[in-house]
Amino acid sequence: MALIVQKYGGTSVGSAERIRNVARRVADTRNAGNDVVVVVSAMGQGTDDLMALAADVTANPYPREMDMLLTAGERISMALCAMALQDQGIPAMSLTGSQAGILTTSVHGSAEIIDIRADRVRAGLDEGKVVIVAGFQGVDPVAKEVTTLGRGGSDATAVALAAAMQADVCEIYTDVDGVFTADPRVVPGAVKLDDISFEEMLELAGAGAGVLMARSVEFGRRYGIPIHVRSSFHAAEGTWVKEETMEEAIVRGVAHDSSEAKVTVHGVPDQPGVAANLFEPLAEADVNVDMIVQNVSIEGVTDISFTVPKASADRAKEIADKVAREVGAGGVDIDTNIAKVSLVGAGMKSELGIASRMFRILSDHEINIEMISTSPIRISCVVRGEDVEAAVRSLHEGFRPASSPKEE
Amino acid sequence: MALIVQKYGGTSVGSAERIRNVARRVADTRNAGNDVVVVVSAMGQGTDDLMALAADVTANPYPREMDMLLTAGERISMALCAMALQDQGIPAMSLTGSQAGILTTSVHGSAEIIDIRADRVRAGLDEGKVVIVAGFQGVDPVAKEVTTLGRGGSDATAVALAAAMQADVCEIYTDVDGVFTADPRVVPGAVKLDDISFEEMLELAGAGAGVLMARSVEFGRRYGIPIHVRSSFHAAEGTWVKEETMEEAIVRGVAHDSSEAKVTVHGVPDQPGVAANLFEPLAEADVNVDMIVQNVSIEGVTDISFTVPKASADRAKEIADKVAREVGAGGVDIDTNIAKVSLVGAGMKSELGIASRMFRILSDHEINIEMISTSPIRISCVVRGEDVEAAVRSLHEGFRPASSPKEE
Repeated sequence: MALIVQKYGGTSVGSAERIRNVARRVADTRNAGNDVVVVVSAMGQGTDDLMALAADVTANPYPREMDMLLTAGERISMALCAMALQDQGIPAMSLTGSQAGILTTSVHGSAEIIDIRADRVRAGLDEGKVVIVAGFQGVDPVAKEVTTLGRGGSDATAVALAAAMQADVCEIYTDVDGVFTADPRVVPGAVKLDDISFEEMLELAGAGAGVLMARSVEFGRRYGIPIHVRSSFHAAEGTWVKEETMEEAIVRGVAHDSSEAKVTVHGVPDQPGVAANLFEPLAEADVNVDMIVQNVSIEGVTDISFTVPKASADRAKEIADKVAREVGAGGVDIDTNIAKVSLVGAGMKSELGIASRMFRILSDHEINIEMISTSPIRISCVVRGEDVEAAVRSLHEGFRPASSPKEE
Repeated sequence: MALIVQKYGGTSVGSAERIRNVARRVADTRNAGNDVVVVVSAMGQGTDDLMALAADVTANPYPREMDMLLTAGERISMALCAMALQDQGIPAMSLTGSQAGILTTSVHGSAEIIDIRADRVRAGLDEGKVVIVAGFQGVDPVAKEVTTLGRGGSDATAVALAAAMQADVCEIYTDVDGVFTADPRVVPGAVKLDDISFEEMLELAGAGAGVLMARSVEFGRRYGIPIHVRSSFHAAEGTWVKEETMEEAIVRGVAHDSSEAKVTVHGVPDQPGVAANLFEPLAEADVNVDMIVQNVSIEGVTDISFTVPKASADRAKEIADKVAREVGAGGVDIDTNIAKVSLVGAGMKSELGIASRMFRILSDHEINIEMISTSPIRISCVVRGEDVEAAVRSLHEGFRPASSPKEE
């Protein structure tokens, strides 16, 4: 008998009918002899609807009350899921994040899970029940305040819970079939990956693949919990995210991300401490800096470019302007019409020439590269926004990532 | 500085605009130098919407999960109310029933408040905040399960909280102006009562006046908390429910109730234990029996009539049929076309002839009386369903209850 944690997203529980479908799926898993813990998001647009209500009441909702409000969303879906299971003769109970022992930091709206005390989840399983846990939410054990985990929070709940309970697998049900070699909306020939290593998935998530957030992958990697990303609409296998295998593909996927803007500080005096002067205040202002590139110094001055979420671009420019004045830099440019295209594959570690092949393919398609950043298993290039789809297609065509390394 | 508990019902918090209105009202009370605790119901049709969702999922929702589901309703309204107050510069925080220390029995769907440990409410007030508490909900401290209090539960939360915190007044905001001498939809000349005693209000609530549930009045009476029933749409005074005054009106109000059915067991052998045989199984089946009348025995047999909510009529008939067979009674009749009309007034205790005046007025209007039951401060008659409005109007005209005893 295995212990399986299943996570269903907002689309999967978006209506009474879909909730009954989810219940049938959970019942099948349970009737096959498994213990099942289910993590659910709020129904469909539930969270957005609640945010719209808050916006009608005030332009500046307090984060504590916003968390109190939003946590109503999963409360509704989890209770309905428990009812639907009971309706099919399966004993079930729902638990809030707090009841399930999801302990977090105190940062409302983007709390981090610090510990899981899953006594009530275990007790429910011991009583022969399927336990439904609210995703996305937890409790700050010091102030006893309800918190939410921010974007991708329900996945994090599921994987962290699977880790704490030493589950055999964490299944993430979603409205796509799994993790693809590229976004199928951009590359019609993209194929679903049968499996992928945690490290590759972390890089893909960071490079813009939206199917799974990096924090969930990191939980799975740290505690060795295989994550199975699969469709809630049919029974076919999805993509297994797990420890790396012996055979490593050179390129597993081509990811892209159009959500960032580029900030460039020109004519920065090349002296110790300048980078710290720039990036410390950005971090303090909660601006999430992604790529950072500094050119070689020419005649004692250099350019520093970095990318930030478009939503943070104005704040980043304001801070960069201030720092530029302080250190005597030339000025600050901002460019929102950029996109990032990335190749990810564990095999890059031991294979030479991937980067140059990538640059050649982009050049052959007359796509100009504005920034480059690499990790041992990833290469990312910033290109013009209008070039990104052509870049993804040409790289997918050039490297032909396949479902599994064996197929190559 | 007074401590005021204010309760706002679903209509009062039915939209973002109305929530902002409630916040203005709370802010005014607070800015006048009072400590304020606010109890809120779910928004408008919020509870009904959640019940409809549950009905879409299953025909038989488990009570535990129903409570988990429904408690999302007040969670939403209380967070929005806190945001609206903060938006007006008033420090505020919302608390669930559990966080506010509303401890209840374990009966899901109709739990009773057994204790209130309002430490977090007090701490919030000590920090200078308005504290918003979810009505209708609590927690069973033994099983640590979320419970709901059933119909009228938010009023009960408010009055019980006012009692626990020794508040100066509990204000119940509603969509009517207060307690009236009769239902204004039936009697256009009905007037709002300035005040009424707890005992009279208990009888009126039991006789069908829907503005305040008996359980809330009972809390107020037991702990000596004045209850001010008033409109959330304007600032005029409503009705004060409080200890009885020196001057007692003979008739304070005419109440009516068309929600009950009459069950008659004919030809019951008049021997000890027969009534117990009948009413014990009804109580065990949770059938709420209201009036009971037993006629004098003629030749060793008697008729027993009683009223029950129409929704329980079939169950009551089934049980009565079974008992009738066991004790050798003649048979069981059920009549759903009845209504009850009641006179309530503390002055009845010392005034003779009220009952006969009531019967005369009904007789003069050719309204037949089918059952009679009395308490020291109430007389109720069961009449035909189609006669009830004429009965209420003629009794209101005959006894002319006024806003306050002094006006008579």
